[in-house]
Amino acid sequence: MDQPTARQQRGEAVFQQVFGREPRPGSYPEFLRITVDHLFGEIWTRPHLSVEERELVALTAVTLARTDWELRGHIGAALHLGMSREKIVEIIIQLAYYGGWPVANNGLRVAQEVFAELDGATGGKAGHDR
Amino acid sequence: MDQPTARQQRGEAVFQQVFGREPRPGSYPEFLRITVDHLFGEIWTRPHLSVEERELVALTAVTLARTDWELRGHIGAALHLGMSREKIVEIIIQLAYYGGWPVANNGLRVAQEVFAELDGATGGKAGHDR
Amino acid sequence: MDQPTARQQRGEAVFQQVFGREPRPGSYPEFLRITVDHLFGEIWTRPHLSVEERELVALTAVTLARTDWELRGHIGAALHLGMSREKIVEIIIQLAYYGGWPVANNGLRVAQEVFAELDGATGGKAGHDR
Amino acid sequence: MDQPTARQQRGEAVFQQVFGREPRPGSYPEFLRITVDHLFGEIWTRPHLSVEERELVALTAVTLARTDWELRGHIGAALHLGMSREKIVEIIIQLAYYGGWPVANNGLRVAQEVFAELDGATGGKAGHDR
Amino acid sequence: MDQPTARQQRGEAVFQQVFGREPRPGSYPEFLRITVDHLFGEIWTRPHLSVEERELVALTAVTLARTDWELRGHIGAALHLGMSREKIVEIIIQLAYYGGWPVANNGLRVAQEVFAELDGATGGKAGHDR
Amino acid sequence: MDQPTARQQRGEAVFQQVFGREPRPGSYPEFLRITVDHLFGEIWTRPHLSVEERELVALTAVTLARTDWELRGHIGAALHLGMSREKIVEIIIQLAYYGGWPVANNGLRVAQEVFAELDGATGGKAGHDR
Repeated sequence: MDQPTARQQRGEAVFQQVFGREPRPGSYPEFLRITVDHLFGEIWTRPHLSVEERELVALTAVTLARTDWELRGHIGAALHLGMSREKIVEIIIQLAYYGGWPVANNGLRVAQEVFAELDGATGGKAGHDR
Repeated sequence: MDQPTARQQRGEAVFQQVFGREPRPGSYPEFLRITVDHLFGEIWTRPHLSVEERELVALTAVTLARTDWELRGHIGAALHLGMSREKIVEIIIQLAYYGGWPVANNGLRVAQEVFAELDGATGGKAGHDR
Repeated sequence: MDQPTARQQRGEAVFQQVFGREPRPGSYPEFLRITVDHLFGEIWTRPHLSVEERELVALTAVTLARTDWELRGHIGAALHLGMSREKIVEIIIQLAYYGGWPVANNGLRVAQEVFAELDGATGGKAGHDR
Repeated sequence: MDQPTARQQRGEAVFQQVFGREPRPGSYPEFLRITVDHLFGEIWTRPHLSVEERELVALTAVTLARTDWELRGHIGAALHLGMSREKIVEIIIQLAYYGGWPVANNGLRVAQEVFAELDGATGGKAGHDR
Repeated sequence: MDQPTARQQRGEAVFQQVFGREPRPGSYPEFLRITVDHLFGEIWTRPHLSVEERELVALTAVTLARTDWELRGHIGAALHLGMSREKIVEIIIQLAYYGGWPVANNGLRVAQEVFAELDGATGGKAGHDR
Repeated sequence: MDQPTARQQRGEAVFQQVFGREPRPGSYPEFLRITVDHLFGEIWTRPHLSVEERELVALTAVTLARTDWELRGHIGAALHLGMSREKIVEIIIQLAYYGGWPVANNGLRVAQEVFAELDGATGGKAGHDR
């Protein structure tokens, strides 16, 4: 248990490492501080799991939670950490069997949107089907 | 167990108290009647919990359910019943720990949208960050 | 356990029977192949439940999962299999009691959108109320 | 909307039809009254779904909810309404694909326990494996 | 953001206030430290919600989560904080409508067990019925 | 898409690799065949994720699903695949933040039981506390 300032700084560094940008204050600065301090400063820096493995756990959890906006964020984080698109899609396909087809179809739809935006695609063509 | 008409009227009164408007018939008049009759006429009028406490329970439940449209309705209800924005946000922050970060980030995003609409904000500035 | 080709063909036929269209390759051809092969070729063709009963189970599951896009697909499938709008709405109303009001209000909102699109409605009038 | 007494009596009759026994007062007589009155007296007696179809919906919902004690009750109800063991198992197998393997393995374990009790089996032999 | 020691001490005091006992190290001392430090030292001591209101939120969340062991702990906490049995039961009854009958029946079953243990009841008589 | 026999044999081999034992027929031989064939023969053998990474995904999913019996099976599988106890515990601790404290406390309780059985512990001493 170290000093608060050290924890906050460590949290900001891990946040930057995972999401590829600084935490932005936004509308809920206190919740952001808690997120950076508790979640990134303490949990993501604990031993026994690498940052890549923690992203695997986080991406699995948000895919199962079906919160689209969060899911977009963690697909972006996974890509930023060097996970391939094929690997992200593979996690979601496995979750068809561990969380059900609605979870997987929802996850694949969101992944497709994220990939299309990154490609500068204008949509319309690359329809996702169940 | 009183007469149906009394229950229906009591339900309409509680619905008005919670949401600040009359129930509108809409597309599913039978489901609305059941909602007003069972949920508001019987459950919300039972003893041991105040209307404010029942809204605390309902807001917690819809935040955890991650059904955005419902969540918007209950954030509106909470405000109408006199709950402060700070208290609503505080409930959602606590739910980061009892339902997980995806639940809380989703809830805060919806709350921000509701607050911005009430302020006539045109968005753009008040970005929410994870 | 029969030959892969037979299973794939049987899956395509059941998919067509349920959704009223051929499976479209889309962005994830491998997941579509698994879906057609495992889910439609093996599970939907097993004995003891009719295709209509399996749709009842699937529609219940996706309503409870609150994945809107999936829900739209299965409301379409239910209609295609001959389930009436009244029956679809009735399933969702029952789920108010087995999954909670947020689940039902979300499901009824999606059903209304699907029905309105089929009617060529331009919206605005047919507002859904909690 | 009929008189309370009629609704209560109708609810008791449907409860008896579904579970094969009278509702027992137990520890929460008020919740039992609401259950009999709202859920069985009003919802289970609505049109568009047969009692057997409503049990299909309920059994699907409690399997997905993973509340063992409830699940035992609805497997009993399904059997009482004439659903075969094979059909009950088949619903749970389909839910492996719509709710995930944990849901199905849990449901099959509970079903096995219910079937074994009905057979007067003393367990030990009939081990369930994932 | 104050000093770690102060936060830890404040967390221990709130834990004691909520559960009526000191945190016991048990098998996972590090997770207990995080729980006391983050959850009780920071979150439960934040403004805008009283400890009683926070317990209302927590009890709602664990009832919806259907984790029996956790639910027993928070029913105990609610009683320790002065919430009446009637109020605890009333929250669970409301959750029949916001989370579904399986959630409520499960919660009432657990509550009955906790109450019976406190009364030194030996069970057998006080059967809970759906 | 290869021949059924090849897929079945491959599935049995992966099942053996993950759980450290042959699949046992048990009470539902057909569901076991599907599990071995679809889940282990096709999904666990797909590229882009190692068997260890797939166990990380599966363990995360069953921890979030709160199905104790399944969770015991996958903690056993993780150990059999060489994952350390510290790493398993660390995944569950991270899930406190991505799925909520009830999920983590439930997971840690089950992990403790599995570890104690492996150690031949007779319980009583090693109490887990929230």
